[in-house]
Amino acid sequence: MPRDGRIVRERLQRSALELFTEHGYDGATAGQIAAHAGVTERTFFRHFPDKREVLFASEEELREVLSGALAAVPPELEALPTLRRAFHDVVPLLERNRPLAELRAPVIRAAPALRERESAKATALVTLVAEALEKRGVSARSALLCARVGMDAFSTAIRRWMTEPSPDLHAEVDEAFEELRALTGAL
Amino acid sequence: MPRDGRIVRERLQRSALELFTEHGYDGATAGQIAAHAGVTERTFFRHFPDKREVLFASEEELREVLSGALAAVPPELEALPTLRRAFHDVVPLLERNRPLAELRAPVIRAAPALRERESAKATALVTLVAEALEKRGVSARSALLCARVGMDAFSTAIRRWMTEPSPDLHAEVDEAFEELRALTGAL
Repeated sequence: MPRDGRIVRERLQRSALELFTEHGYDGATAGQIAAHAGVTERTFFRHFPDKREVLFASEEELREVLSGALAAVPPELEALPTLRRAFHDVVPLLERNRPLAELRAPVIRAAPALRERESAKATALVTLVAEALEKRGVSARSALLCARVGMDAFSTAIRRWMTEPSPDLHAEVDEAFEELRALTGAL
Repeated sequence: MPRDGRIVRERLQRSALELFTEHGYDGATAGQIAAHAGVTERTFFRHFPDKREVLFASEEELREVLSGALAAVPPELEALPTLRRAFHDVVPLLERNRPLAELRAPVIRAAPALRERESAKATALVTLVAEALEKRGVSARSALLCARVGMDAFSTAIRRWMTEPSPDLHAEVDEAFEELRALTGAL
């Protein structure tokens, strides 16, 4: 997307989050979001298929960055170390998106339909990770369990980073994987 | 519930699954399910608040049995061994419910609203497990990650048992936990 397009897109995301935060998700229309961002409703719909998707606009970027990061991990790494390495490569994107993510979280939590969309997004990410692991030679039978466990660690790290006074997502990723290892050490 | 009530309830569950399998979830009403089971629509609604919940009737029983199993694990066991032990105690319930579960899975898969309800049920089970771990002294910060990872192993075991020619859910539970240990051994 050209730079101007990206600026408009991000302005629309921010406007949507500001209006949803103030009036609730049902309290702002696509037209009002566009007006708040200083563009036409037609421009809004050039960027997003509907009002809901403005909240999930960063999903595609996350999928692309994560896919690229997984493909770039040296082939000799084992499955969970592969995921840990790839998650570290996604950290800069999450750091850049954090201001919007902080506004976004309570909006999602407040609306069941948005929580369901968020949950479907998480499931799709697990599938993406499992498929990447299979491409690296992990058996189809094991790839899904490994992807789930890795994403558990990553989402735990992100949750702590967002909710605790935690400045460093890299450190949280390492700590969550360390906890995984400690937990299973008792088996 | 008295024995007669349980028989009627299970007959309604089976009737619902038979009709949903044949006509789709939207192709059968509560009244038709009741008629198929040889009872009145009023009896249906004495057992289930709506048509959807007939598909999730075993959820409450699963929650009760799992809670009891978690509470019965000797306190000296570590977190993941606690979960493994409790999951083994739930196996007889799942074995008993397997014929209905086999009819149920494709019905759930076919309808987005049912998949969402199923996903909410899984989230609620993770919360139940995390709270049980906290009661056993696992820190609130770690309990959720541990609960998620344990439930990943359990749901992996159940999925394999349901979809592969696998006669023994106990063996699948042990194998999934063994895989967890092997996966994290590479960290």
